[in-house]
Amino acid sequence: MTEISSLGEFGLIDRLTDKLDKVNDSTLRGVGDDAAVMRYGSDRDVLVTTDLLLENVHFDLTYVPLKHLGYKAAVVNFSDIYAMNGTPRQITVSLGISRRFTVEHIEELYAGIRYACERYGVDLVGGDTSSSNQGLVISITCIGDAKPEDIVYRDGAKPTDLICVSGDLGAAYMGLQVLEREKVASAGRKDFIPDFSGKEYLVERQLKPEARRDIIEELAQAGIRPTSMMDVSDGLSSELLHICKLSHTGCRVYEDRIPIDYQTAVMAEEVNMNLVTAALNGGEDYELLFTVPLTAHDKVEKLEGIKVIGYITEPNLGCAMITRDGGEIPLRAQGWNPLVAEDSEDTSLSQSPAEDKE
Amino acid sequence: MTEISSLGEFGLIDRLTDKLDKVNDSTLRGVGDDAAVMRYGSDRDVLVTTDLLLENVHFDLTYVPLKHLGYKAAVVNFSDIYAMNGTPRQITVSLGISRRFTVEHIEELYAGIRYACERYGVDLVGGDTSSSNQGLVISITCIGDAKPEDIVYRDGAKPTDLICVSGDLGAAYMGLQVLEREKVASAGRKDFIPDFSGKEYLVERQLKPEARRDIIEELAQAGIRPTSMMDVSDGLSSELLHICKLSHTGCRVYEDRIPIDYQTAVMAEEVNMNLVTAALNGGEDYELLFTVPLTAHDKVEKLEGIKVIGYITEPNLGCAMITRDGGEIPLRAQGWNPLVAEDSEDTSLSQSPAEDKE
Repeated sequence: MTEISSLGEFGLIDRLTDKLDKVNDSTLRGVGDDAAVMRYGSDRDVLVTTDLLLENVHFDLTYVPLKHLGYKAAVVNFSDIYAMNGTPRQITVSLGISRRFTVEHIEELYAGIRYACERYGVDLVGGDTSSSNQGLVISITCIGDAKPEDIVYRDGAKPTDLICVSGDLGAAYMGLQVLEREKVASAGRKDFIPDFSGKEYLVERQLKPEARRDIIEELAQAGIRPTSMMDVSDGLSSELLHICKLSHTGCRVYEDRIPIDYQTAVMAEEVNMNLVTAALNGGEDYELLFTVPLTAHDKVEKLEGIKVIGYITEPNLGCAMITRDGGEIPLRAQGWNPLVAEDSEDTSLSQSPAEDKE
Repeated sequence: MTEISSLGEFGLIDRLTDKLDKVNDSTLRGVGDDAAVMRYGSDRDVLVTTDLLLENVHFDLTYVPLKHLGYKAAVVNFSDIYAMNGTPRQITVSLGISRRFTVEHIEELYAGIRYACERYGVDLVGGDTSSSNQGLVISITCIGDAKPEDIVYRDGAKPTDLICVSGDLGAAYMGLQVLEREKVASAGRKDFIPDFSGKEYLVERQLKPEARRDIIEELAQAGIRPTSMMDVSDGLSSELLHICKLSHTGCRVYEDRIPIDYQTAVMAEEVNMNLVTAALNGGEDYELLFTVPLTAHDKVEKLEGIKVIGYITEPNLGCAMITRDGGEIPLRAQGWNPLVAEDSEDTSLSQSPAEDKE
């Protein structure tokens, strides 16, 4: 018998989806990207993505308000559709609900989902609701569309392409550390008021992430079509390795170019974590990681909220980070691996960046 | 605070989806049918349906083989697409997996899913896999298509339409009784060999249901387009009340026309249940319930595996069953309600037909 943890999530998926043939002409692209792509004889292709969120694995209701949870559960799916350079259009929401939840609780959750739908122009079109004896279960599927020629896959990166990332990295993971710290401090104290001062940005990035629709629009307006793209949910290292593996390339990223917010740096200092490791492996940033041709350099440099952090190389050069002192460290996928998270106290991040350094 | 059980699944969904406006032109029909319908400028509309299955709520692994579970989890989604008169094309599979499962276990589950996909010509196009500390969680979303003019909704029934049902009813529920009985008998006995003799059909209906693609094809070949249709997952009573509510009609069904298999009748006798109540409320039949215009009477009577069981009336006449002795009993929705199932020993059917009679 093979322990699932010995394969990890991607190993398991590879194994399960090995030799999966497609039978429908309408199936353009299946497993292996942010969303599946279907064509139904139209000038728009259909994109589908899905996410499963389990209580005490993916979220902790002691500090996550239900409305925020609903918002985030929807937004992370929209993020996957944007990561294909598409537009999210519809979602289905399936819930497993245990007895301790009241209708008002579920309405709070839905209020967050509906608010996300409103903000991103998405329709809630269906779902399934059932009891659970296992805490709250949330499964959201998002359907989107894109013109066939606009869709950006993970496998299109070419040597000399520039590697770009939106926003900043590591903040959501540091927000989780803030929330966990306050949870520990609050244990058994009813009158406890959590102290988030100076950490507001981190907490917001953890509890209420946004999908980068603005970046997609900005790129379209600038006439830049990325050669590859995905959203940063498991951590920059993990995602970059994905793009390079699927594109059959290597890469170099510069340590001093990785965008990190001031609050992230302060918190890393406070909890004695390596800042760059947190930014590389923290996950849940929901920023867009993409590559553009070298010829787009001047255009992309001018764009707000986008940073060029490195370049794509020939495959034989491998994937590495160039440190501030000019050294090279191989990139390793040490992001969020929910398949080994079970039974650990901090189930949200099974391998914390701090642990990775051991 | 409102207990969720006071609303039930459909009440909760009504409440959660109240005043849900659509913003995308591509969203034709959202919540409230077997699948959502989208149009992307093509000659085919896109259908989406989703199902969430939780261990010890929807299935019991002490007697459900993982391969069968995978097969059924896929097929019940295909059934929803057929119930729209569409063709299932793609599925996404999300799994939450707890530690006691090995890779081989999950491969068994996937073998069932893939076998179902092969048999029904469906592509597995994606999903999400994560750890669970809550037993096995399976969330499947199915995407299908149909010509716009072919789609059959639940709300199209008209007075004088004939009510038809495929196959027979109550067998899957009786199969569950067989399995539960053998589970009790086997408790603590390692050498126990379950005895399914004479009950093979019931067990197969419970463990390995099929979606009625054949009926959809038969109707198309006969040139019959149902005026309304849905699949029987919660029980005939519940589904008929849905169709009548959404179509603003009443209905009459004849007790002596409800199709019931011989094995179902024998098992009902053995466990001292009212046979018709089991057939009306048992659920998980995955047969097709549909209405056709009265003018299609002669055509539909000739079709194999389809039975006319009653007719649609004006709404003021309500929904009732005409008993063998000519009396009328109002139809009540007492099907499978997973939202009140928690904490009960028999979680698979919270209100058994036997209990309903109390």
